[in-house]
Amino acid sequence: MRNKTIVVIGGGTGIFSVLSGLKKYPVNLSAIVTMADSGGSTRVLREEFGILPPGDIRRALVALAGSEKLLASLFNYRFKEGGLSGHNFGNLLITALERIKGDFEKAIEEAGKILNIRGQVIPVTLGNTNLYAVLENGQVIEGETNIDIPKHNPHLKIKKVYLKPKIKANKKAIAALLKADLIVIGPGDLYTSIIPNLLVKGISRAIKRSKAKKVYICNLMTKWGETNNFTGYDFIKEIENYLNRLAKHSRRAGSSVPRRVLDYVIFNTKKPLFLRIAKYEKEGAAFVNFNKKKFLKEEFQIIKGNFLRTKGFIRHDPVKVAKALLRIIQ
Amino acid sequence: MRNKTIVVIGGGTGIFSVLSGLKKYPVNLSAIVTMADSGGSTRVLREEFGILPPGDIRRALVALAGSEKLLASLFNYRFKEGGLSGHNFGNLLITALERIKGDFEKAIEEAGKILNIRGQVIPVTLGNTNLYAVLENGQVIEGETNIDIPKHNPHLKIKKVYLKPKIKANKKAIAALLKADLIVIGPGDLYTSIIPNLLVKGISRAIKRSKAKKVYICNLMTKWGETNNFTGYDFIKEIENYLNRLAKHSRRAGSSVPRRVLDYVIFNTKKPLFLRIAKYEKEGAAFVNFNKKKFLKEEFQIIKGNFLRTKGFIRHDPVKVAKALLRIIQ
Repeated sequence: MRNKTIVVIGGGTGIFSVLSGLKKYPVNLSAIVTMADSGGSTRVLREEFGILPPGDIRRALVALAGSEKLLASLFNYRFKEGGLSGHNFGNLLITALERIKGDFEKAIEEAGKILNIRGQVIPVTLGNTNLYAVLENGQVIEGETNIDIPKHNPHLKIKKVYLKPKIKANKKAIAALLKADLIVIGPGDLYTSIIPNLLVKGISRAIKRSKAKKVYICNLMTKWGETNNFTGYDFIKEIENYLNRLAKHSRRAGSSVPRRVLDYVIFNTKKPLFLRIAKYEKEGAAFVNFNKKKFLKEEFQIIKGNFLRTKGFIRHDPVKVAKALLRIIQ
Repeated sequence: MRNKTIVVIGGGTGIFSVLSGLKKYPVNLSAIVTMADSGGSTRVLREEFGILPPGDIRRALVALAGSEKLLASLFNYRFKEGGLSGHNFGNLLITALERIKGDFEKAIEEAGKILNIRGQVIPVTLGNTNLYAVLENGQVIEGETNIDIPKHNPHLKIKKVYLKPKIKANKKAIAALLKADLIVIGPGDLYTSIIPNLLVKGISRAIKRSKAKKVYICNLMTKWGETNNFTGYDFIKEIENYLNRLAKHSRRAGSSVPRRVLDYVIFNTKKPLFLRIAKYEKEGAAFVNFNKKKFLKEEFQIIKGNFLRTKGFIRHDPVKVAKALLRIIQ
């Protein structure tokens, strides 16, 4: 029997748990990652080298890295002194490889070899673009980093996000989605790490067309200024909205009534202890509750349970998540 | 029969040919490299991170690198844009590893693992120091880079070079020298890459005490402002001078008459073609002639012949040099 093919879509630190859990199993694993990052070291490299943003690529590479722990910490090392301050070593490595190879994708491939990764990392697009958000008062915020770390009034809700210029998906991302047995969306910052992937032309349609089972892993905590007071329902509804909105261009007949794209939602119901949650609450984040009432008529299957890491940051437990995902395609 | 142990002493690009040639043979290979570099990317990293100079270490690591060509070009890649401009990727890697490991030697070891090197690279000292030169008019030049790329009148001869503060040798360097079957000095810039090693306390004495055969590989070309008009005799005499001057502290009785330390000198007699040599001459460099008359009474054996690479830069041919060296210890 051939190994199952799993594609994980996301960005930031969210999909780390999913990728680092799944890489231990005999599956064909791909990570499709957002190219909308515009902060920190990545911003400087985008501006000065004109390269695509390496930050999310780097995080996915590290998540998929083979046994060598030192290399992974090297990739994540951030310089703290002098003119290099703020630069991330892995970003510099991807930048240098891009210059040597003259090609961003080849650079990722070579970085993957150096890290001996299990699987592959695919930038969702090879086009250069920026993320914008429209707030409920009509204000437009430019740049992923300004949405991620709000300089505006963070009480204002995000009405929608979009990419400008519009850009086409990386063909490899489309191919991976169409071949997949399982497509996993998230977890991760909704508007800055997850939805930017769905905004790339061709991605939502490929997800819908794919025969893969589609799973969304809901976030554990809300994020201040981005998903204030969101319940599980709100997260899932937004994912479905963006999957369907972009699918409007589909030429299939009778697709005017948006159908549910997701087959499964993985939802953690285990609340972390007060002490662990307190420092998140200081930053305006809250534990995501499910909001059961709203889900009565939903078509997708909800996999509820304890998916929480037992210690440290409030993150998904890689093993628990991997097991739940593999059960779906068994 | 155990593999022979070879220690190569130098710095800069000179010992590349020696190391890259020898690494293909079944020998225990060590490179002891100078820690006096104070130019370019290395200078910035020394100042901003307070680390030991990584540049010469990096070059030796690359010379000893295993099969992976891309990694070697990555290590040598120099950023050309923005705030990173001038920084060398390999130097940044050594710097990041030093910060992660908290130890310069461990950083070199790990970088060596990443490059899959054949042999080991040993910094001649773990102390921080600077190179000074006294010119024939008494002027003192501070810093390796200012001697290497003269801002002073380059017609003036270098009377002597010294390190300030004085520093002790790395114990590993001493141990390697004492255990060696063959010690190879050079080739490389005489006052800025080779002699700075001999100036480190303990190194010259260890070379003299070692039962190893000692070989000096004479430079092919003179260097403007450093070794103007030098013949083979001048190079060899200076090496012997510095080996003996520092050996004055030796407590052995009857060592007042300096004896020859070198057993062999490898000297190239094949003059490159005019076209190849022309651009060197523009930079004030000249082909090194032997000056036979002066050598009549010398004790060491001179291995003369064609050691020239057939193409490109005027460098030693790695295979020709390696074969000559191995013949000595057969």
